Amino acid sequence: MQFPVEDIDADELARREALFGPLADTVRELIDVTIRSEADEDTILEAAQRIRDVTKRLNDRRCEGGFGVRFTEHGHMMTWGNAVSGLRNAIAPPLVVEQAADGGMCSDFTLGAAYEGPPGLVHGGVCALVLDQVCGMAASTAKPNLTGTLSLRYRRPTPLGPVRARARIDRIEGVKTFVVGELYDADGNVTVSAEGVFILPAWARGR
Amino acid sequence: MQFPVEDIDADELARREALFGPLADTVRELIDVTIRSEADEDTILEAAQRIRDVTKRLNDRRCEGGFGVRFTEHGHMMTWGNAVSGLRNAIAPPLVVEQAADGGMCSDFTLGAAYEGPPGLVHGGVCALVLDQVCGMAASTAKPNLTGTLSLRYRRPTPLGPVRARARIDRIEGVKTFVVGELYDADGNVTVSAEGVFILPAWARGR
Repeated sequence: MQFPVEDIDADELARREALFGPLADTVRELIDVTIRSEADEDTILEAAQRIRDVTKRLNDRRCEGGFGVRFTEHGHMMTWGNAVSGLRNAIAPPLVVEQAADGGMCSDFTLGAAYEGPPGLVHGGVCALVLDQVCGMAASTAKPNLTGTLSLRYRRPTPLGPVRARARIDRIEGVKTFVVGELYDADGNVTVSAEGVFILPAWARGR
Repeated sequence: MQFPVEDIDADELARREALFGPLADTVRELIDVTIRSEADEDTILEAAQRIRDVTKRLNDRRCEGGFGVRFTEHGHMMTWGNAVSGLRNAIAPPLVVEQAADGGMCSDFTLGAAYEGPPGLVHGGVCALVLDQVCGMAASTAKPNLTGTLSLRYRRPTPLGPVRARARIDRIEGVKTFVVGELYDADGNVTVSAEGVFILPAWARGR
């Protein structure tokens, strides 16, 4: 597994965040309206053509494969392609995950039309997606950990709208970190609870 | 839970599929290049402005809330906003899920840069996302079912690229349908296995 180091300082990092973050935000809004638009046929066809033109311009220079996980020389980790928290990934809400007072991880975010499963409700798989990320981050504060098992219990539907995810370490046994987490709706009800076992990968042991 | 019926025939359904499907496909390509582009600052800024313009045009007329689940008068179900299989949802790869010879469900699809977690690998939560969908569809061939529990075991990393998901009913006990499923990499190895319990919702019982 490769973690390239980019030769950029804090100013250049901030410049790139300010450039690529808003680009991804505009794409997030486009995703939403691509689902919800009731525009006429000509408008839709013209929109598709314009998007193809923009994509072509952006494609002139691009990296091979995914964005990966990159570091700056000062050790800042850039997970900008991450499907849940990536600054440049319009699929990601994106989650901003912060350390909570109890030492666990917490994130408040909003899930709109693009995250729907049953009518008006967050897709059950999207609940799993965000809980995997937040549980994984709770497990990985000191060392990287990959998901070993993840068990989800759906207690009630999660309405589209504001959502909170929380996770914290339950215990550590050797290379296994046991994590528990929950998803909450806007009224503070637990909608989904999660138990995960995260594994310290072989390449990170002995570090 | 509401399931609107749209007054459209097969021709109009086909027209809308042919209009909105390609629009979402162009947005999928834009998502990919938004992550991977190494274009210069002016190109990025101009791209963001053009996308905002397109979004504004598409936004002139739009539905309230999510797309939901709609039916045509002839009973065709439109889950076009679905986060995994939605024709109009650019977050969705989208999965086309088909009945397999064993009576279960099967889907072949490709996951690119937008679905990345660790470098070069599918995000563990994305594995859960697609397995929830395919397991849920295996559970719901006759009646609708919502996820009750979902347990995932990550057996090996899933590289970005072609992926297969399969799921089938293990047994049915009252309102609970027990489903098993797997994710496979391009070489046919099982990368993630899943066990799910899907629940027939109260509003669908007695139908």
